[in-house]
This record gives sequence, structure tokens and C-alpha cells, in this order.
Amino acid sequence: MAKDSVVSVRELIARRKPGFSLEAPFYTSPEIFRMDMEAIFGRHWIYVGVEPDVAEEGDAMVVNIGNSSVIIVRDDEGAVRAYHNVCRHRGARMIPEGKTIIGNIVCPYHSWTYGLDGGLKFAEHMTPDFDRGCHGLKPVHLRSVGGLLFICLAEDAPDDIDAMAEIMEPYLAPHDIRNTRVAHQADLIENGNWKLVMENNRECYHCGPNHPELTIPLFAYGFGFAPESLDEEGRREAERYNQLSESSRAKWEAAGLPSREVEHLSDRVTGFRTERLPIDRAGESQTMDTRAACRIPLGTIGDMAAGGLSFWTQPNSWHHFMGDHIVTFSAIPIDEGHTLVRTRWLVNKDAVEGVDYDLTRLTEVWNATNQQDADLVAIGQQGAMDPAYEPGPYSPHTEGLVEKFVNWYLDRLSHNVK
Amino acid sequence: MAKDSVVSVRELIARRKPGFSLEAPFYTSPEIFRMDMEAIFGRHWIYVGVEPDVAEEGDAMVVNIGNSSVIIVRDDEGAVRAYHNVCRHRGARMIPEGKTIIGNIVCPYHSWTYGLDGGLKFAEHMTPDFDRGCHGLKPVHLRSVGGLLFICLAEDAPDDIDAMAEIMEPYLAPHDIRNTRVAHQADLIENGNWKLVMENNRECYHCGPNHPELTIPLFAYGFGFAPESLDEEGRREAERYNQLSESSRAKWEAAGLPSREVEHLSDRVTGFRTERLPIDRAGESQTMDTRAACRIPLGTIGDMAAGGLSFWTQPNSWHHFMGDHIVTFSAIPIDEGHTLVRTRWLVNKDAVEGVDYDLTRLTEVWNATNQQDADLVAIGQQGAMDPAYEPGPYSPHTEGLVEKFVNWYLDRLSHNVK
Amino acid sequence: MAKDSVVSVRELIARRKPGFSLEAPFYTSPEIFRMDMEAIFGRHWIYVGVEPDVAEEGDAMVVNIGNSSVIIVRDDEGAVRAYHNVCRHRGARMIPEGKTIIGNIVCPYHSWTYGLDGGLKFAEHMTPDFDRGCHGLKPVHLRSVGGLLFICLAEDAPDDIDAMAEIMEPYLAPHDIRNTRVAHQADLIENGNWKLVMENNRECYHCGPNHPELTIPLFAYGFGFAPESLDEEGRREAERYNQLSESSRAKWEAAGLPSREVEHLSDRVTGFRTERLPIDRAGESQTMDTRAACRIPLGTIGDMAAGGLSFWTQPNSWHHFMGDHIVTFSAIPIDEGHTLVRTRWLVNKDAVEGVDYDLTRLTEVWNATNQQDADLVAIGQQGAMDPAYEPGPYSPHTEGLVEKFVNWYLDRLSHNVK
Repeated sequence: MAKDSVVSVRELIARRKPGFSLEAPFYTSPEIFRMDMEAIFGRHWIYVGVEPDVAEEGDAMVVNIGNSSVIIVRDDEGAVRAYHNVCRHRGARMIPEGKTIIGNIVCPYHSWTYGLDGGLKFAEHMTPDFDRGCHGLKPVHLRSVGGLLFICLAEDAPDDIDAMAEIMEPYLAPHDIRNTRVAHQADLIENGNWKLVMENNRECYHCGPNHPELTIPLFAYGFGFAPESLDEEGRREAERYNQLSESSRAKWEAAGLPSREVEHLSDRVTGFRTERLPIDRAGESQTMDTRAACRIPLGTIGDMAAGGLSFWTQPNSWHHFMGDHIVTFSAIPIDEGHTLVRTRWLVNKDAVEGVDYDLTRLTEVWNATNQQDADLVAIGQQGAMDPAYEPGPYSPHTEGLVEKFVNWYLDRLSHNVK
Repeated sequence: MAKDSVVSVRELIARRKPGFSLEAPFYTSPEIFRMDMEAIFGRHWIYVGVEPDVAEEGDAMVVNIGNSSVIIVRDDEGAVRAYHNVCRHRGARMIPEGKTIIGNIVCPYHSWTYGLDGGLKFAEHMTPDFDRGCHGLKPVHLRSVGGLLFICLAEDAPDDIDAMAEIMEPYLAPHDIRNTRVAHQADLIENGNWKLVMENNRECYHCGPNHPELTIPLFAYGFGFAPESLDEEGRREAERYNQLSESSRAKWEAAGLPSREVEHLSDRVTGFRTERLPIDRAGESQTMDTRAACRIPLGTIGDMAAGGLSFWTQPNSWHHFMGDHIVTFSAIPIDEGHTLVRTRWLVNKDAVEGVDYDLTRLTEVWNATNQQDADLVAIGQQGAMDPAYEPGPYSPHTEGLVEKFVNWYLDRLSHNVK
Repeated sequence: MAKDSVVSVRELIARRKPGFSLEAPFYTSPEIFRMDMEAIFGRHWIYVGVEPDVAEEGDAMVVNIGNSSVIIVRDDEGAVRAYHNVCRHRGARMIPEGKTIIGNIVCPYHSWTYGLDGGLKFAEHMTPDFDRGCHGLKPVHLRSVGGLLFICLAEDAPDDIDAMAEIMEPYLAPHDIRNTRVAHQADLIENGNWKLVMENNRECYHCGPNHPELTIPLFAYGFGFAPESLDEEGRREAERYNQLSESSRAKWEAAGLPSREVEHLSDRVTGFRTERLPIDRAGESQTMDTRAACRIPLGTIGDMAAGGLSFWTQPNSWHHFMGDHIVTFSAIPIDEGHTLVRTRWLVNKDAVEGVDYDLTRLTEVWNATNQQDADLVAIGQQGAMDPAYEPGPYSPHTEGLVEKFVNWYLDRLSHNVK
């Protein structure tokens, strides 16, 4: 299987035909998956959650990325910090995945005890020459961008997250993530390679045939179309969308809600894109009737018709910020054929379930859409495994962002594979 | 694990001791399994079903062989055709395994639409220079031998299937497969390598100790014995079998039912064997009382006592054709330790369940026999995995067809491994 | 993955830092696991059960070690013998794992039949020149040490088991294993490498924080402590333990119960250690109230306060012999991340359940302790898989026997890896 060797990955990268989907081994090879985990997920900023996940001092959240496990904790000074979840004695995993509240970090095996600053405070039965100062928890880079938490597992983290934060914070500020609460979290294991999950996220070519719920609030035209594909009604719809976009944009900018597209998906190490898009019909939210799901608005947003601010990051996240709630997604690879998609719905922290919002109404569009996407990812993986598969052409009109994702991935892989 | 390398497979083939079972890696190595899928199942004619599976225009059946998925469909002109089940856009698997009815082949991902002739009819949002003519479905070789469907995944399919068809069609014609109906299909995943499944099928040495139901209609003596192993009663039985064989053969040939043995198991690329064998006791069918399970005879067969025409093909099928029904089997490898055995029971297409036949009575002998065989295959696999396993001697009297299967396999493997 | 190659295993062995846990590949690499199965479990004496498992002529027990399966049977002369559970015909596994009673060993596939002496007695349909004498079952080395059964899968078994037997038999004799009965057996699959199971067994540093039941009868101090770790109460407890040890030892030796420590864990091929330790409180047994669980004493032991004779063997067993019952453990690797721990509770063969002992009372301490240990092994495995894991320091006071296990393992591996 020469295809699986490191040399051949270089060849595979070199011979990739622009505008076409990747060759099969990128989706199916365990060897390339290991490279992805090391070169992509081990050396870039990975979106893992939001500050409200660890709202109070002592709140901790354990996130697993591949075989790595990371403790994210708000320390006694209110700062959010991250450590490898590996005891420095014999390596035991100290806290299981999920959320908890802690005073110290205590390994259950032999009770080695670390402070929230990572220092080893207590280790029984060691000899007097044992240096506790050399056995603190290993830190992990953590950065909050307007309340969105990114970690980097590498020793040196890419520093262009500063530039992304500078651009994004004005976009995010009105939605005030830090004053939200996680109303619901849903984990879905999709039966496909993480890149198929991301590629699926980067186009809406499939929305029409597959997402009856999502296409109530969302205009498929916002993500491109071939003019010659439109019939009379399609042309009228596209024109309507254009006019609504322009009028909305003027209104948002006047109200201090940044809306213009910023796109650095493939020209930065920390690639991202943002844009505020109109919501169709009632214009308020990604719900079945397009009206707000929560009656308490977010942050400084007075008008529920704030549209949908979308934010995409490479390699693993996408987010939709509306006037009443936020939906935020992370994709975490499991193995070459499985990916965890974790979705959080955030509402104003003062909102009360059953009073200010109904959980079903809040979550139904994306619960349905996620499952539909999972089904598409699964048939994509089955196809990529078929010996008859060969890369096919992307539509330049509707799959341009897929191409940018693939270009970013190949560039980052080639920079990081020895 | 030098044993697993391509060089060593050559060595393993070269040093194989004739008359002895194969060395363990042939049954246990994932590497040799991949070679089997490529060299054997990727380049030979594989039995996958019967014409009645796709009886009408638009009837489709998807068959998976390893990671390959094939759509078999009867087109608008009534011809049966086969295509790779892989969209030419981004490769999605278009139709799940099983049977369905279709007008076109529509990919659920982005609605690319193919005609039953495989041509791409519709692909939205592509640019004007996109050539639909270059993006039709990839065809798969398909051949019907008297109603039995064989496919070949290779670009060039072995052409000696013509010779097999010429020989076999007179044998099959009286049973008129095209005018049957699949009364029942059963899938059984056996816990063993596909070659253990086939070796088990190629001898009846194990029938006496293991198949109390099958040995009601079947004479174990028909598949060989050591004369010195027989006691007085055994000799009488063998003599009775010989006489019945001779008288039956004369009767069948007179009635236009070919019966003589044709054996090309190891001297052809498309290896096969056929023979019409008497059925014991009432002499009609492979049922618990040896009487016909269906009261409407097949095709042109007037006499239910037509015996059992058996047909074996390399690498993956066996079939029993009687006067009242047909039982047909395919073995499809899953991985080095698992194999799907798919069994179909066919009756005259005019037969009505509960009126002309009882489903339990029709299927009980082979349902029981298949499970017994699965148990034997499982202990064979466990043994082959044991470090203490070494190839043991076949009985020339009862395991000659196993030897022919193994010889065919090794010859075909050595021709197709680079 | 150069780490997984044979060369690199040599490097990993050479660079191992004494006093620190092993590098991750020893716990996680499938390649090193295969070496462990061959070099450690394939060439050393493996504890598999007790003579009472096969008490009578014809009693058989099948034990699986990795892919190997071994039939242990008491033959017609009352001797215990062991054979590979692989038919010499086509290799079928003849008897499933567990216990049974047999007259001959009959392969279910084609009825080849072997005597309890391993000789092939019957094989139908072979030719007259077939030599049954060359097709007997392959023997496996078996040795009973005071009633504990050890097997060795290698052609040449380490001969220093004689020395171990000579030392151990006087220790074991008073407990008279041969006149016990298996009151209960429990199988637990732990989610960790077998070496993590063994390392966990070789220290009681974790007992305080994890084993509330076991630390009723057991003094953690018996397995070492750092003097400076003790507070006032701890010092008093340690002093009490020392005095009890000395007085108990004098009493036991006077009563003919050997008690002094013998330790050859890392200086012999067949490494072992034994010591008789006091039981706390009522002093009788490893039960929740430290009183005997069975009212009929074992063997020649008159006094229930016989303490707890512990016996540890490399690579895979540990045992506790008390006045009223015995608990005996074997660890059998499944794959690099899973291990079967099999526990047997033995009582006097004349003891009647519900009359002389209550099964819950007999088993509750170790059922609870085993599950707690399994949880620790699982978090150890998760940690070893984490890229952030690095070997950490053992406590010389409490983890000295872990270090001896690791040293024995590395020494034996380096002797047996080509």
C-alpha cells in the first residue's frame, strides 16, 4: 500500500487537481488520519467550546481530541486555563470527559494533587529529593475570541489568532457570548472522515434537496448559484435576496452591527470567514417559523431582526449568531471514518426554559439538519472507500468554499508533514 | 511480519504442499485478504443474484462486494445492466444495498441525475464548459447465464464465461430461472475467511456428523468415500446409490434433462462443475420428507423426480436445481475473518405462498444446514488463527474438490499478484 | 511509525529510565503486543488454573491465551495433561473455552478422534498409507505447583520452575489446594494493557484512595510507605503492624506455617515472590468483617488466624491463601488495550454452599476490589495513549515491586526478541 506512505502523501498533495475533490486515501487511510491528527489538529487552533461552559471559578470541562484529553478550567482568579489531563506520576487520565466542578485537580490513582494553576501540591510516599516543581501539569495554549474558546496542542501556537481576534471581536461583541448560557448540547457521531464533515459544511448546494427545515430561514442563494440554472421563479427569488441583503446591510451597519464579509479561509494559518446574512420570511432566527426562539435578546442587540452572523474557522468549526440565540458547532475527528459533531445552543443567561424559550423550538432546525448532514457524510464516506471512486469536479458557483477548505488543508498538511 | 508482504505471498504459494490445507496467513492475514479482494473478487466473474431479482424495467438491486457497490438494473429496453454505485460528482453512494424501483438514478447529495443507460442527464450549477458526456456512471461487466447473474469488476473480464454459458445453458434451461420468483432470501454472516466457507462447501465429509437435515435427501456417498471405511451396511448403501444413479441418469437423459458431470474447477479462469444427482427416499426435493415443497413444477419439468442439478462456480457460488424449487448461494467476503452467505429460494413465478408452497417447509433444510456450516467455518477460523495450526492432509476420497478449489485459488492469485 | 519496529523496541528497552514507568508504546503498540504474546506469554510459565478445575478422570478445561487454545485434561491414569486445541486434519478448534467432561477428544468437523493421551485413534476416509502416528495432538508443557497449574507454550520450557516448586510447596502444602473446590469463578475484561494490570497488582499505594473493602483486612503498610509521609496516627499504625507481624510470624513458624519472604521477582526466568502477611482486626480472612467466610478450614490448618499467604508470579498471577479459603487470579492478555482477569475462590471440597459458607460473603471483597482495579487500569490506559504522556517516577517506598516487574519484563523481552 505505497499510497499510505509519507512519500506518497507528498505525491498525493502534489498531483491534486484543483477544483476536484480529494483522492480517496485522504478520506480513508489510517496513516493520513494520523498525520491529520498531528499536523492539523495537533498544530492549529481548535474550537472546543464557549466561556459559559466554565462560567464560575472551579468550573471545569474536559475535552478529548483524538487520544489527547484537555482540562479547561476557570481558575481562582477568574482566568480560563487549559492543561493536559495526564497525571505526571504514572499518566492516569484524571477527569473523565464532560463538565465538573473542582477545587484542585486530584488524580484518582494515587491522589497526586494539582492546584488550578497546574502546580503539583501533594504527592505522598515520594523521597525527600523528589522535586514537585518539575512535575506540574503540562499546560495547553488557550485563547478566548469574544467568548469562543480555542486551544492549540502544539508547543508553539500559530500567532495569527491575534489578527483573527482583532477582526472578529467587533462582530461578536453585540451578541455578548460571555453573558449567555448553554441551553442545550447535542453530540452526534457522523460515519465519515472529518474532512467530509467540513466539506459538507462549506457548501449549500446540497441544502435544497436535503434540508427542508434549514431552508425556511436560510436562502440557498446566499451561498452561490449558476445564473443559467435558474428558471423564471429562481431569478425572481435571487433578485429578492439581493435587494434584501443590501437593505439589511445598510440597516445593520447603521445599528452598529458589522456585516461585511471577511474571508481568510485559505490565506492564513488560522483560516476563517465571517458574514452577516439576512434571514428569510419573518427574518428573526433559524427556527421553523423564522421568529425568535427566545424572547430575551442577546447582549446589546435590541432588534431581533439582526440577521444571522456566520463565522467559519479552519479546521473545525462553524457558528451562527442571531438576535435571540447562538448555535455553535465543533467537529472532532474520532478515526478516519468517524467524526464527533458537537452542537451547543446558547441563550441569554437570564432566559428561563419554559418561560422565555421552548427547548424543542430552539433546537429543532439544527437537530434535523445535523442528522441530514450526517446521512450525507456517511454516503460520502462509503463512496470514498469504493475502488471505483475518483475525484469529481466542484461547481465554481456553489462549492468555492469547499475548494478553499481543501486548499487550506493541503497547504497546512504539506507544511507540517516531515 | 514478513509473512504478510507481497514477496512472502509468492513464497507461501510456492511452498504449498499439495493435498494439504493452506498455511494460516491465507485465512488470517489482512494483507492477503486485500489481495484476494483485488486479484480474485476484483478480476473474476462473481455470482450475485438471479434475473428475477430485477424482473421488470426499472427494478434495481444494489450488491456490495467488499468496498465496491454495484447497481444492477433492468433498463427501459428490458436489458439488465450494471454500474458502479458512485456519483461522478463527489463520489457519494447513491442507492443503499438491497432492492428498489427507479426511473433514473438520482444522487441524493446534489441531485446529479443519471439515466438507466448510465448517462448523466442533469447536474445543476455547473459551468457551461462542463461536459456531461464525460461524467456518466462507470459500467460494470454483467452476464446472465441461463438467468444466473455474474458480474466482473475488472476492466477486462475473463472471456471463458462464454464457454461456461454454452455448456451450462442446456442444463439450466429446463428449470427456467427467468420464470421463477425469489420466495425467500436469507443473509448469514459467517465468522470465517471466505475460503473456509468455500472449502466447507466443496466436501460432504462433514455431512454425516453435522447435517442431520441435509442427509435426508442427500447421499453423502455421492461425494466420495474410502471403500475400506465402509461396514457391511455402508457397502450396501453405496451399492444402492450406484444403481439409483445409473437408472436415474438413463431416465433423465431420455427425458431431455442433461445429467453427466462436467468438471472444470481448476483448469479454467472461470472454473465450474455441474452434475445431476439423485435425491434419496421420495426422490423429489431437498426437504425434510424429500417430497416437493412447491406443487407447481419449474419450467419444462414435468416429473418432480428430476433429481438435483448441482452447479458450483469459482470463486463464490453453489446452486441446487430441483423439479419444484431452486436454492442458490453466493459467498461475499467481508473481511479476513467474516463472510456473507446469501441464500435465495426460487419457485415458479406463478406459485402462491400458503397455497402452492409453505415457506417453512421450503427453507428448513438449508436454513438448518447453513447455520451448521457457519458453526464449522467459525471453528475452522479459530483454528487457523492458533499459532499451533499447521496444514493437515485432505482425504483424496472425500476432499478432492477442496483441493481443486485451493489449486484454482492459488493459480489465480499467482497470476494476479504483482 | 518507526517506534513500532523491532529495532526501535531494542532502543526503547535500552533507553528506559530506571525507576520510571515505561514509555507509551509498551502499553499501546499492537506490534509490541504481538512481541509480548510471543516472547513473554509464548515462552514462560503461565498460570491458568488449579487442579480442582479438572478433579476427575475425563474432566477437561479449555483455556485460551491470545489466539492459542489449550485443552487441559485429567487422563485415565489421573495425570493432568495439556494439548493444543487444534485438530491435525484441517485445524478446527475442537472444544470451546470452559469446562467439560470427555471420554475422547472428538473434532466436530470430520470426527477425527483422539485419546486422552493425545494419540489419533480414528480418522475416516483417509488412504491406507496415512500414518495416524504422525497426527496426534500437539502436547503443551504443564506443571502443577502444589495444585496450581502452569503451562508453557514454548517447545522448551524454562526449567527453573523446579526451583520455584521446591521453595513454594512447603508454603502451599498446609492449604492443600488439591482438596479444595472452585466455589466461584469471575471473569472481568479490563480496558488496559496486561502490564498495567500487573503493575497495578504490584503496589498498594493506590489501596488507600481506592479500596475501602480490601483495606479492612489488609494493612497498606505491609507494602511500604515513606516514613516522612506518616502523621502521628500513621506512625502508631505502622508500629502496631510491625509488632503484629513479628508476633504472628513466630506463631506461624511454630505451627509449621512457613511465612518468611522469598523474593525472586526479577532475578529468575520464572520470577516469583511469596510472604505470609497478618490480617487486620479479627485476623482470619479477606472478608468484610475479617472473619472466616467458610467454617471448614483448609488442609492441615487448624487455626483460622493463619494470616494470608500471598504468592505472586511473573508474568501473570497472584494468589492469597487463608485458613478458610483461597483467592487466585490470572491475567490473560486479549489485545494491547484489553486483559482478562479471571478470579477463582476455593474452599474446602467438603464445604457446602449455604451451609458452610455464603457465596456473597466469600466473594464481596475481591469482586469490589477487582472492579476498582479495572477502573484504575482503564484510566492508566487512556493516559498511556495520550500524546502528552511521559514516563513518571515510581515511589521507591511503595512501588518497588512495580519496578521489579518492569525490570523482569524488559529483561525477558530483550532475551526473546530477535
